[in-house]
Amino acid sequence: MDCIFCKIANGEVPGEFLYRDAKVFAVKDINPQAPIHYLVMPIEHIPSVADLAPERLPIVAELMRVANHLAEKEGISKRGYRLVINCRREGGQAVPHLHMHLLGGRALLGKLG
Amino acid sequence: MDCIFCKIANGEVPGEFLYRDAKVFAVKDINPQAPIHYLVMPIEHIPSVADLAPERLPIVAELMRVANHLAEKEGISKRGYRLVINCRREGGQAVPHLHMHLLGGRALLGKLG
Repeated sequence: MDCIFCKIANGEVPGEFLYRDAKVFAVKDINPQAPIHYLVMPIEHIPSVADLAPERLPIVAELMRVANHLAEKEGISKRGYRLVINCRREGGQAVPHLHMHLLGGRALLGKLG
Repeated sequence: MDCIFCKIANGEVPGEFLYRDAKVFAVKDINPQAPIHYLVMPIEHIPSVADLAPERLPIVAELMRVANHLAEKEGISKRGYRLVINCRREGGQAVPHLHMHLLGGRALLGKLG
């Protein structure tokens, strides 16, 4: 599997885990667009949200749980934050392994894309 | 409850439903930022994702299910799309009733906020 996020998940490529459990992990975005810019994703290789079979939809709630946990830990829960999932080409998905962006630490712009 | 999205949900304010079931509904964004710009949200009034108690997290998977359904219906599943949840002030949340933006129909920009 030639997927950079799978390689980080399995230790083949070194990465700093901000969070990790049996299903989900989180790392920093290497090109941050805000003071806090994390990526929260399943360990399982799912290419995009458009590839989520109905029985796999609960993983999205798991990503949300971890994003909320990290926002709380970073002290931005009350100030607010933004969650983005890019899907495939027109969505601007850079790596074909489903991931949720968590952005915060400043007032984010109203433009969504 | 003085919430515009609750009023649309309960029919007090007229709205065109793109989707509706017992838990979730979807409407067009009144200030669209892309050819397709829909809002998918719970009927239940939850102010933001930061207010989601752990037992309510599955609603996020329901929002995802409906967003994927609408993307499929609009023919943008293969081209791609973007999902955004703004949380509270710095996240740019305009209405304090949890909602997921579905944007598509053109190549979205890489800037996320």
